[in-house]
Amino acid sequence: MIATLWTNARIVTADGSIDRAPEAGALEVLTQGGRIVAVGPGLARDGHRIVDCGGRLLTPAPVDCHSHIIFGGDRANEFEMRLVGVPYTQIAQAGGGIKASMRATRAMSVEALVAASLPRLDHLLAEGVCTIEVKSGYGLSVAAELTMLRAARALGHARQVRVCTTWLAAHALPPEYDARPEAYIAEVAIAGLEAAHAEGLVDAVDSFCEGIAFTPAQLAPLYDRARALGLPVKIHAEQLSHLGGTAFAARYGALSADHLEHATTGDAQAMAASGTVAVLLPGAFYALRETVLPPVAAFRAAGVPMALATDCNPGTSPLTSILLAMNMGATLFRLTVAECLLAITAHAARALGLQDEVGRIAPGLAADMVLWDAETPAQLVARIGFNPLHARIFQGEVVA
Amino acid sequence: MIATLWTNARIVTADGSIDRAPEAGALEVLTQGGRIVAVGPGLARDGHRIVDCGGRLLTPAPVDCHSHIIFGGDRANEFEMRLVGVPYTQIAQAGGGIKASMRATRAMSVEALVAASLPRLDHLLAEGVCTIEVKSGYGLSVAAELTMLRAARALGHARQVRVCTTWLAAHALPPEYDARPEAYIAEVAIAGLEAAHAEGLVDAVDSFCEGIAFTPAQLAPLYDRARALGLPVKIHAEQLSHLGGTAFAARYGALSADHLEHATTGDAQAMAASGTVAVLLPGAFYALRETVLPPVAAFRAAGVPMALATDCNPGTSPLTSILLAMNMGATLFRLTVAECLLAITAHAARALGLQDEVGRIAPGLAADMVLWDAETPAQLVARIGFNPLHARIFQGEVVA
Ligand SMILES: [Zn+2]
Ligand SMILES: [Zn+2]
Repeated sequence: MIATLWTNARIVTADGSIDRAPEAGALEVLTQGGRIVAVGPGLARDGHRIVDCGGRLLTPAPVDCHSHIIFGGDRANEFEMRLVGVPYTQIAQAGGGIKASMRATRAMSVEALVAASLPRLDHLLAEGVCTIEVKSGYGLSVAAELTMLRAARALGHARQVRVCTTWLAAHALPPEYDARPEAYIAEVAIAGLEAAHAEGLVDAVDSFCEGIAFTPAQLAPLYDRARALGLPVKIHAEQLSHLGGTAFAARYGALSADHLEHATTGDAQAMAASGTVAVLLPGAFYALRETVLPPVAAFRAAGVPMALATDCNPGTSPLTSILLAMNMGATLFRLTVAECLLAITAHAARALGLQDEVGRIAPGLAADMVLWDAETPAQLVARIGFNPLHARIFQGEVVA
Repeated sequence: MIATLWTNARIVTADGSIDRAPEAGALEVLTQGGRIVAVGPGLARDGHRIVDCGGRLLTPAPVDCHSHIIFGGDRANEFEMRLVGVPYTQIAQAGGGIKASMRATRAMSVEALVAASLPRLDHLLAEGVCTIEVKSGYGLSVAAELTMLRAARALGHARQVRVCTTWLAAHALPPEYDARPEAYIAEVAIAGLEAAHAEGLVDAVDSFCEGIAFTPAQLAPLYDRARALGLPVKIHAEQLSHLGGTAFAARYGALSADHLEHATTGDAQAMAASGTVAVLLPGAFYALRETVLPPVAAFRAAGVPMALATDCNPGTSPLTSILLAMNMGATLFRLTVAECLLAITAHAARALGLQDEVGRIAPGLAADMVLWDAETPAQLVARIGFNPLHARIFQGEVVA
């Protein structure tokens, strides 16, 4: 099998620290059979296909490690109503909010969900994303949650992209389980998880731990079952208040805790001990006009890796740009450029348990990379609403 | 000459109020020779080319009425330095800030400036922009300011787009005029304006009225000369402090006053009296993490039309998305969806003095329109970093 040598690129490997101003050609990458086989200066040329990268920046392909990209309908009408002063309670009483997405999603087939989601996915692929996490969570019944994850798997066949599925039945309480959260967890979140897992649909288990959703005590049976099934867990926690979801999930060795605006130094230390990644979601922070910042300094001090993701969803973060997630991470959360780039590559991969598969340019990993019309990582982060992608490379091949 | 009938579209004319949920086919548009010749229900079909718009949303093409899209270099390195805590004064002392852009711009030819600016322009065109204002202001010498506006005119020939040029020599004081602002205004801003005007390069005159730039008293001779030459004026005012630039410019009948975070109710009333548009620039507000909001309620109360623009520039607003400018106008400034759409169409056109040429779907205007994969204006505003453009129509023809 012929190997490809990627030459004359400014390579940022994200394998350790970030090179602020990489020199063109100082490193080269050799790929073969969809994987990276060597990285270094002055690699042998004989018998290889040579690609001249024209002095462009070459980075690991972005990984969007938190998305709700599959959903029916949209909630632009609610966005419009809120701007003219309709209170959220009134919108919710009129059947809006997550229940509007639930109704629209429940009405759709796998094929319809795929068709609705592809334009959003294509926007992310146009920015070079090669791995995306996709959650269920708008079906809120066993059947509809399964349909969502079948659609997630189908997205991975419809495009050249790696899809990681997450079972998020514990996203909200549907009306038929009103005031019966324990029954919902048992009959839908757990029973559905077992069915979905048996069908090979589940890569990880997630929940929304918040006053408007579930408490750690309510979630414990679900996380116990995930552990029994050998499935990794993650959690939406401390977004609007401090309910202890982060420490709870850390006890299960969670891959990630996500949002975290109200997390504490103690949470950061628990995450460091459990190897849990802090997934920060500035799109939701921006859209909700939040003012409490996640404790970035505490994560740095504790050595917790920070990731950034789109949180693409119909309500609180209708964001389909991983580049903008980076810019917001810098602008709103004051992450450095180096932190931002690690946050959508190596650390995002770690948040999915894929740290030895994607997210770095290192021997043995998948050859998922992006060539950018840029010279430095800062040029990827500083611009707002600009896409300097030159080529997306998925498993060693330039793809659309 | 054959006419084209655009049928089966959800048409938002922006000619007056905004239709929140237009019905497909309720209105049709007839265009001929690059212009709109009729708008209404049930137009005659005989002899016309019929375009079925597939039920999509049809709006006036966006107008970006405030941009500094032409510049040399970039300042991503400064963005990176600020994030690691280097103070702005230290960056400025090291030759950063606007002076870095000045040095890079002065070193470039018309052709080089066009080449550097086209990727930015192309991003805006991909979102349907058909008219863009382009300012000088990084040359800061007569020769380099002329070069910038020649490049601006050249952009209008390089792409299917209408370019409005603005003379902004009074953007900053270059080092060779240190502490001599009056001399700079006379010898560069005014002398250069006359040369540029003689060459047909100037559609309007602008300035940066701020503590770090120029005072109204220093600017008066420039605005007097603009008036004598019959050129309309505008102003960057009340962005970081209240220096009175808005009231000053209103006395000259300014087309627009721009930024305005620190404007007062009195300023709003002066603008209403002079017919001056409030051009709000949320990209700069976002990037600078400002907290003082422009007095939107005062503009509403006084009947001042509000526009939104990218302010695309290398330092404080490296934004190349007019859709994101709308989303930020709603999210950060709480403009309604209807206000946002008028802000990038009819009101943006008014800010350029082009209210009878572009920005509305109305008989007699240029047939600059966009077909979107959307059903309502809210769907254009609510999403973040998503481009639902289906077709850009410039002077009656679908263009790339
Ligand atoms: Zn989420
Ligand atoms: Zn400006």
